[in-house]
Amino acid sequence: MTDHAIYMQEALGLAAQALFLSNPNPRVGCVLVGRSGAVIGRGFTQQAGGPHAEVMALRDAAAQGHSTQGATAYVTLEPCAHHGRTGPCCEALIAAGVAQVVGALTDPNPQVAGQGFARLQAAGVAVEVGPGAAASRALNIGFFSRMERGRPWVRLKAATSLDGATALGNGASQWITSPAARADGHHWRARACAVLTGIGTILADDPQLNVRAVATPRQPQVVVVDSQLRIPLDAKVLRAGSACIIYTSVLNIQKTKQLQALGATVIHLPSAQGQVDLAAMLADLGQRSINELHVEAGAILNGALLAQGLVDELLLYLAPTLLGQGCKGMAALGPLQDLGQALPWQFHEVTPIGPDLRVLARQPTSAVGSAAGPTTG
Amino acid sequence: MTDHAIYMQEALGLAAQALFLSNPNPRVGCVLVGRSGAVIGRGFTQQAGGPHAEVMALRDAAAQGHSTQGATAYVTLEPCAHHGRTGPCCEALIAAGVAQVVGALTDPNPQVAGQGFARLQAAGVAVEVGPGAAASRALNIGFFSRMERGRPWVRLKAATSLDGATALGNGASQWITSPAARADGHHWRARACAVLTGIGTILADDPQLNVRAVATPRQPQVVVVDSQLRIPLDAKVLRAGSACIIYTSVLNIQKTKQLQALGATVIHLPSAQGQVDLAAMLADLGQRSINELHVEAGAILNGALLAQGLVDELLLYLAPTLLGQGCKGMAALGPLQDLGQALPWQFHEVTPIGPDLRVLARQPTSAVGSAAGPTTG
Repeated sequence: MTDHAIYMQEALGLAAQALFLSNPNPRVGCVLVGRSGAVIGRGFTQQAGGPHAEVMALRDAAAQGHSTQGATAYVTLEPCAHHGRTGPCCEALIAAGVAQVVGALTDPNPQVAGQGFARLQAAGVAVEVGPGAAASRALNIGFFSRMERGRPWVRLKAATSLDGATALGNGASQWITSPAARADGHHWRARACAVLTGIGTILADDPQLNVRAVATPRQPQVVVVDSQLRIPLDAKVLRAGSACIIYTSVLNIQKTKQLQALGATVIHLPSAQGQVDLAAMLADLGQRSINELHVEAGAILNGALLAQGLVDELLLYLAPTLLGQGCKGMAALGPLQDLGQALPWQFHEVTPIGPDLRVLARQPTSAVGSAAGPTTG
Repeated sequence: MTDHAIYMQEALGLAAQALFLSNPNPRVGCVLVGRSGAVIGRGFTQQAGGPHAEVMALRDAAAQGHSTQGATAYVTLEPCAHHGRTGPCCEALIAAGVAQVVGALTDPNPQVAGQGFARLQAAGVAVEVGPGAAASRALNIGFFSRMERGRPWVRLKAATSLDGATALGNGASQWITSPAARADGHHWRARACAVLTGIGTILADDPQLNVRAVATPRQPQVVVVDSQLRIPLDAKVLRAGSACIIYTSVLNIQKTKQLQALGATVIHLPSAQGQVDLAAMLADLGQRSINELHVEAGAILNGALLAQGLVDELLLYLAPTLLGQGCKGMAALGPLQDLGQALPWQFHEVTPIGPDLRVLARQPTSAVGSAAGPTTG
């Protein structure tokens, strides 16, 4: 590997430490390399409103007494040039005397893309863009989805037997997969901005849908599709105090007020068919800064999302068991009349998790994660 | 690796060349190493009735003009000491002046185990047993099953969507998986002694069940479970001239004679419930020298075999597609009332095959392939 690749690899490792932390901001890492070639500072983006990776790395260098004059900054995404909740990172790098910035990617927001690098170059800082682009995009697949498509990256999770059952006919589903697989599932919840479910799951299981099996500094929001606004006021997702968002297709002022009193947001978004307009819901969630949307729902909502082509990724845990007849399935699609009507997927990654198998599959048309970034700046 | 391990590895590679060839004899390879340390002969077991690996290796050495005096023979299974269709390999090795035999495993047949090594030692040949034992057992999993349990290794093949469908509700199943996966499936047919199906599949699909997508010197036998002897006289499995075996639970002299006239064998093996006694069928197939039984059947026969715990291995091709509601499943088991009633399986191997995924899973209780061989002789 070249020096650039090695330092960028370290910056990507730092960015990964922001996985559960920086939402809805992107996961960004920064490595500062002094004139001598030694790493003098490291940082990654903190929680929303907190410092970005570049500022953390500059603070780290200062805390260790290192001079940043003439240093090179490796950063996994273009430094910001705008005054948001924190000061712009470009100004901080310029003020610190940084001589060169190596960035993995330009900012995917078309409104600001390139402005950070341009500001740096205008101040005499050398800029190179490209190393680590694919890895940085992959780490921020939801952020890129929101910036480029205006909607979240939708990841549908299911735990099934080898013959596709998510529960027995009598509803028993605890547990088809192993504790290891369930903990892994919580890892994916933790990295999501929000967890989506349907009213059927709320009524049947009353789940909490929060992250418990892994440590996390923040909880994802819970989003419920509830066409008829049937959610009980004592549902656990309301009691959790996590600012639940409920999409409905009916106007029910009284129930809406009761839910709002519990801290929930109720959004009326009917489709022409009287259901919740799921595509409009995803656009609205994009507006609400949801990057990765983690779906844990029943067959009906899963089927509706899949039938409308709104799922980007399947996250399946396959248990080494066969459950046979009369079981509940993953998605109420179809019935299809022709195999050609089925949506094509592609296996993306297959990993053993304890005794189970974790399968990630993607829609070939969901290009967010696969497009390469620019190779020069 | 030690020299022993290297030469045994080569002998195992030769044994693998007998995969489609030597049934019902085991897949055995032999490497002869001369006094100088050079390989002077190689061989593997030929078709039933043909020469065994040791004789092939001795012939190879002779054809190249090498002396076998004082040579070491690496052989993946104990050389035979009995006069079968070919002369005993022990006598051939002794006559050739071989000084040492390194064997991976003793013969699993309790009637003859150890006799070959004993005969060699009695003639002054040094014997070591153990290197390559696990790999040799794995290659001969069906032969070991037949010798140790008196029944074949039963491998159930199915091609399914990610949500467990083997066909749409209207029966459409051509094709859920890719050409690459289907060719791979023919590889597994080719290594089996027999392919098993049920009358439902014969009536619905009239399959040939022979090996077409890969080259093979022999075809597996076809075995049909047909309780009511409903098989049409023009079924393709009868026309193929491959000595079809039909298990039934009814006595029907006229149909039996018609089937016998077509070269089929009809076996009356009723269970107390009036079905074919599947456990007795497997014992009978063991008697008929079936090592690996490859099951390609519908949900009913699959379910019956699974429910009776008669399947040792699942060979599943998972296509990256979701087919939704109303589809046909892999196995008519249950309906279960409790997840604890499900048979436990273990993932054994997961391999991408073209766009699909090949999953091998085994019953933890099917110990044939996993037991280690002896480490010293």
